[in-house]
Amino acid sequence: MRAAVMRNRQLVVADVPLPDPGPGEVLVKTLACGICGSDLHALKHAEQFVAASRRAGNLFPMDLSRDVVMGHEFCAEIVDHGPDTRRTLPRGTRVCSRPSLVRTDRRITVGYSNDTPGGYGEYMRLTESLLLPVPPALATDHAALTEPMAVGVHAVAKAHLGPDDAPLVIGCGPVGLAVIAALRQQGARPIVAADFSARRRELAVTLGADVVVDPAQVSPWQSWQEVAVWRDAGRAPALPPWMPGPARRPAVVFECVGVPGVLDQIMAAAPRAARIVVVGVCMEPDTISPMLGITKELALQFVLGYTPEEFAATLDHIASGAIPVAPLVTGRVGLDGVAGAFEALAFPDRHAKILVEPGRA
Amino acid sequence: MRAAVMRNRQLVVADVPLPDPGPGEVLVKTLACGICGSDLHALKHAEQFVAASRRAGNLFPMDLSRDVVMGHEFCAEIVDHGPDTRRTLPRGTRVCSRPSLVRTDRRITVGYSNDTPGGYGEYMRLTESLLLPVPPALATDHAALTEPMAVGVHAVAKAHLGPDDAPLVIGCGPVGLAVIAALRQQGARPIVAADFSARRRELAVTLGADVVVDPAQVSPWQSWQEVAVWRDAGRAPALPPWMPGPARRPAVVFECVGVPGVLDQIMAAAPRAARIVVVGVCMEPDTISPMLGITKELALQFVLGYTPEEFAATLDHIASGAIPVAPLVTGRVGLDGVAGAFEALAFPDRHAKILVEPGRA
Repeated sequence: MRAAVMRNRQLVVADVPLPDPGPGEVLVKTLACGICGSDLHALKHAEQFVAASRRAGNLFPMDLSRDVVMGHEFCAEIVDHGPDTRRTLPRGTRVCSRPSLVRTDRRITVGYSNDTPGGYGEYMRLTESLLLPVPPALATDHAALTEPMAVGVHAVAKAHLGPDDAPLVIGCGPVGLAVIAALRQQGARPIVAADFSARRRELAVTLGADVVVDPAQVSPWQSWQEVAVWRDAGRAPALPPWMPGPARRPAVVFECVGVPGVLDQIMAAAPRAARIVVVGVCMEPDTISPMLGITKELALQFVLGYTPEEFAATLDHIASGAIPVAPLVTGRVGLDGVAGAFEALAFPDRHAKILVEPGRA
Repeated sequence: MRAAVMRNRQLVVADVPLPDPGPGEVLVKTLACGICGSDLHALKHAEQFVAASRRAGNLFPMDLSRDVVMGHEFCAEIVDHGPDTRRTLPRGTRVCSRPSLVRTDRRITVGYSNDTPGGYGEYMRLTESLLLPVPPALATDHAALTEPMAVGVHAVAKAHLGPDDAPLVIGCGPVGLAVIAALRQQGARPIVAADFSARRRELAVTLGADVVVDPAQVSPWQSWQEVAVWRDAGRAPALPPWMPGPARRPAVVFECVGVPGVLDQIMAAAPRAARIVVVGVCMEPDTISPMLGITKELALQFVLGYTPEEFAATLDHIASGAIPVAPLVTGRVGLDGVAGAFEALAFPDRHAKILVEPGRA
């Protein structure tokens, strides 16, 4: 089959072996697959990516001297059932799936493996029991966004938001936008969101942000303070006389940048007792000032991925329109366009999500 | 009055002005005051201490060109009542207090201030409404340990321990020992604790640790894994087949060292979904690998101090014997011995807590 292959730190279009579905697995044809920021990182900093994953439990055991077909945000169509399958979903069914191949002895991440190609190839093998049928009325493009939007749903779930919590989203790339959409879907408002890119701030508003901030102009914290006042002043805690008022609601900050230094900036600016949910994937070592955390009793929750239930709920929310995804799709390419799309995604003002359509001419 | 004074980065015994109690304040005579690791740090790295506190909201606004009388872990005796006091507790009453002078316009930390001397001086002024009378049967030495033990009570409270959580305490200096005592008082067992010092491991056992580990010999995590199995196997979550068993209970790690690098070591070794409570005060910048946090979905809770309720409960627990403190007192000095005690505390195998008794000859 044809695929956009990571080979010698480059993306090239090449013929690779058709994946062979094992017991309990199906062969699917990739209809659309989003390009994830982690894929950009894996291409640009391949050794670091593999080394970081190795230190963290060998999450993605790739051999970089061999081909890797990336792509883990997909909508696909069943073309064949392997042995020992239930075949509840017939051939031709459009499906989404968490990018995991679940075997009796191990779990393989689809898209970060040498032998289990991801969605930048014409075909994939997937675990049948993980497949979710895509509702007929839902566009393939939008179904393909289930995976990245589920990341936001999970991050918001892990924040354990109370009714008074006031969120602030730092960074409005695909991860931040997914968090904004999930916050809006769950009714956590007002949502303040910050990004240097005007295009991304526009998208943030489209996905549900109430206030957007350009950090080059205004401190996101100043904007947050303005809107995070208590709606019912009677519920606000009494402030000691030496603290400037009015009292603010509890701060929950979503770090959606994933670049060294951002976490320390957030810790320096966050109010007392703020909870920081780290969703952005920073692969480099990062320096923080523990004293900032200590004196303000900050809490950090690192998050990754989603539960099976959150993934399924996200597909439902996209289908119902509760999580709007249409504005996120800013480009579509065939396999020949993948390398160029990776380059284009380096410019935040141009694109949000580019979909790879391996069947596209 | 006489006091051990921080002056020009040295501890010297000198005469300083007797503090003048303002409205709502009392004058007390210091009976005993523990030496805290933060005081050692404040003396040795004074500029860094003030700079770190300034970045964190100017917690301790000390002018290092002027005298500071440190000491914030004290038991004292009321000798005079200032204006506008209720005088519910008569002269001669032994009291403990959080080391805060609460005024209408600000709050001053007793022991980290130029104008409000701490317990390394013969007298202090304290806020009357914060005073807790010491039960007559409780030794002054033990009452003086209320403050450091309250740090442990607070850290354990902020961990929000569930019935299945299995704690691991990294570092058995005074902070780690306070955490161990609080864990034991709350019935969180088994308690695994690690320290390189044999003396500190002995103290850890005395205060309630079930298993102590010398990290030079055995990984604390290996010991933790051995004891953190589910007592009721029916409550253990099912492990996927690729994960080595048996399943372990949720890990709650208390970082009680406060030295750069320890947090990253803990993040590297911690099991998935571990909660890390950062109690050790690391004043230097520290480098972590966010990927470790992300892939394991770790949670970090930084903590500081205690609530008024926790402070009062700690005094009760010490008085009832639920938190044993007698083994912690390893030395007593007069004001002339403070400088030497600071030096002696650098050797973990010699001392746990040295009490300063300003009235001692």
